[in-house]
Amino acid sequence: MIVEIISVGTEILMGNIVNTNAAFLSEECVTLGLSCYHQQVVGDNHDRLKEAFELALSRSDIVLVSGGLGPTEDDLTKETASEVANLELKMHEPSKEALESYFSKRGMKLTENNYKQAMIPEGAIVLDNPNGTAPGVIIPYKDKAAGKKDVNEKYMILMPGPPGEMKPMFKDSVCPFLRKLSPGTIFSVTVKETGVGESRAEEMIKDLIDTQTNPTIATYAKTGEVHMRVSAMAENKKEAKKLISPVVKELKKRFGKYIFTTDESVSMEDAVIKRLKKKEYTLTCAESCTGGMLSARLINVPGASDVYKSGFVTYANKAKHKFLGVNKKTLKKFGAVSEECAYEMAFGAAQAAGADVAVSITGIAGPDGGTEEKPVGTVYIGLYVRGEAIVKRYNFSGDRTKIRENTVAAALRMLLSVDSLELL
Amino acid sequence: MIVEIISVGTEILMGNIVNTNAAFLSEECVTLGLSCYHQQVVGDNHDRLKEAFELALSRSDIVLVSGGLGPTEDDLTKETASEVANLELKMHEPSKEALESYFSKRGMKLTENNYKQAMIPEGAIVLDNPNGTAPGVIIPYKDKAAGKKDVNEKYMILMPGPPGEMKPMFKDSVCPFLRKLSPGTIFSVTVKETGVGESRAEEMIKDLIDTQTNPTIATYAKTGEVHMRVSAMAENKKEAKKLISPVVKELKKRFGKYIFTTDESVSMEDAVIKRLKKKEYTLTCAESCTGGMLSARLINVPGASDVYKSGFVTYANKAKHKFLGVNKKTLKKFGAVSEECAYEMAFGAAQAAGADVAVSITGIAGPDGGTEEKPVGTVYIGLYVRGEAIVKRYNFSGDRTKIRENTVAAALRMLLSVDSLELL
Repeated sequence: MIVEIISVGTEILMGNIVNTNAAFLSEECVTLGLSCYHQQVVGDNHDRLKEAFELALSRSDIVLVSGGLGPTEDDLTKETASEVANLELKMHEPSKEALESYFSKRGMKLTENNYKQAMIPEGAIVLDNPNGTAPGVIIPYKDKAAGKKDVNEKYMILMPGPPGEMKPMFKDSVCPFLRKLSPGTIFSVTVKETGVGESRAEEMIKDLIDTQTNPTIATYAKTGEVHMRVSAMAENKKEAKKLISPVVKELKKRFGKYIFTTDESVSMEDAVIKRLKKKEYTLTCAESCTGGMLSARLINVPGASDVYKSGFVTYANKAKHKFLGVNKKTLKKFGAVSEECAYEMAFGAAQAAGADVAVSITGIAGPDGGTEEKPVGTVYIGLYVRGEAIVKRYNFSGDRTKIRENTVAAALRMLLSVDSLELL
Repeated sequence: MIVEIISVGTEILMGNIVNTNAAFLSEECVTLGLSCYHQQVVGDNHDRLKEAFELALSRSDIVLVSGGLGPTEDDLTKETASEVANLELKMHEPSKEALESYFSKRGMKLTENNYKQAMIPEGAIVLDNPNGTAPGVIIPYKDKAAGKKDVNEKYMILMPGPPGEMKPMFKDSVCPFLRKLSPGTIFSVTVKETGVGESRAEEMIKDLIDTQTNPTIATYAKTGEVHMRVSAMAENKKEAKKLISPVVKELKKRFGKYIFTTDESVSMEDAVIKRLKKKEYTLTCAESCTGGMLSARLINVPGASDVYKSGFVTYANKAKHKFLGVNKKTLKKFGAVSEECAYEMAFGAAQAAGADVAVSITGIAGPDGGTEEKPVGTVYIGLYVRGEAIVKRYNFSGDRTKIRENTVAAALRMLLSVDSLELL
């Protein structure tokens, strides 16, 4: 089955917002085993919307639409889709009641305009929207292509534009509908690795990607990590899992210690906090060029407070001396961006915070400050674990933001290896 | 002139990456005074690419394309566009030399495939790419619409997919080309405000937006700030500025102290660092629930080191006591998330860091930890300026990330008012 994604909204065409909806829906379609060959973006304009729908229905089976379901006159998605499907809009009593209850709960008054959102094309399936006022709609479309005897049933699936409404609606209502349309069940497992770069990782599994049809493997490169999603189609979940299992095993064999999770919902910082919590270790960070980015990611993990108690942003040399006890001579002789400084920062932070584990970061994020010996992108990361420490030197490229993001990913990667450090 | 944006790449259709290129190009087109009615995304597939180009050329004057200019066989954008324009690809010697120099500089070897990137359709304009190997191309297209005598010159403009290559190429080469095509000059000024919410801001300028045609005003909502871009079309820059000036003045009148810059390139943290630097103030931060996010944003400003020397991530109560000297009784009686604690944190941080200005943040980012009195989203932010301090209570909504981002924006907003605090 072929899916097409249409995002409706002048604000996307003006660049006011980035089209994250299309990325979300595309990724979900891959997970469902559906092929997507086209995305369109079109404004709130009747004629252009109509053309977009007709074009999509001519070449795809399912048209996923988000946006343009609001109460104002500008919002034309539902009206135009109904016209294309040749269905009349009628007041839908349950949606009307849901709308009234939504407003009264919030002490707001319904205007005449709002009732437009409860109008549903006849024969359409209504999708609840617990997070907003616009219900979603699945509109059937009979494709009577010229010369064909069979009538092919296609669908336009309309969802609200705000991601906070669209995403839960897709997960809760659209996904089950799409699953029913497809002959089997799709199930997937995401294997996440850090330490092997994107192109190297793709090379390492090229043979698997090229030969596998069920399950399939799709790779998603993030800063400092690569996600490999293994998806299988089968009669039921159990059978799908059976197909996936040997591939996941093979990935584990090939990537070994670089894999930090096989759980889609687990981030690198989640994995770090979990590992440290299990060992009952506490953690501190002493950050210079990243200025708190690493700490911010770690503390974004709910429950990080069991592990992370305190940390330091020591941007100035004086601060490195005062709060972490870095020797003034070290700073003078080797400079703040040096292996020696990173080493003393890690030890000093652990001591000051009374932590079992400490990460130190000192580097040149640019745009200025680079030298021939230590160009922009030179970063030293220290890792202290209960009395021992190592320092690694990195040379990152890109702008200030990119260098800092890569630094944080590298630090998280080092933290994941906290076990092996003890053996040093 | 009507522009259409085509993003080429299977990785967009699979949701591996978010289509930020289209958002960037759309926003740039608004700035140039060009209308964009359609965006398309299509994979690296000859037939579908061809259809996409033909469709775009049938309804738009300029087709901005990004992606698919790589050296592999999968990359078909240039080949397909040349076919649509009925132009033959020829080896372009300067591009070939640039390619060879790019590789030899990096000590890398050119493969036979790479030379494909130096093939240019006859009559096309070549755009330098100092950040990568694929040059950009402007391909003229003669639109001989049936029944028309005039031949309408249209253009397909091909750019590489990586944003780090596409964006500078657009700014440096495509922008000047597009400017020349349009009858006048577009000039714009961005007025950025913080403190007035998005919908309130839109209400406050609805009359201006509705009545103005030249200049126009477009609003862009960011976390905790709203950008209002005023753009005018005129014969030259001077005339455009004349048109813009009274509108900017009107915005300044309406938003007053909420405006922190009228420079597109200046962020809130830039403005904060600049103001503090001017006053020769140093700054420190003591962060609990934001865990370093505020410091990270401030230190992302090149040259922040003159102002920001050191900061504290004090997530645990003990850390608030140990590093900031928050009284244990305060923590016991009022809790860590309290006005009293934020106050002592601000004073303590300023003292420990020896800074003129200190910001303290303590709050409940969730998902757990909320109470009836202090639900998730309750945040206290303290601002200390040379011996005096104020604390503000906020109630943010959204998930953990959203609450933390809003907190950082609110803290930056408070820092922008550092002048008025002195009068308290």
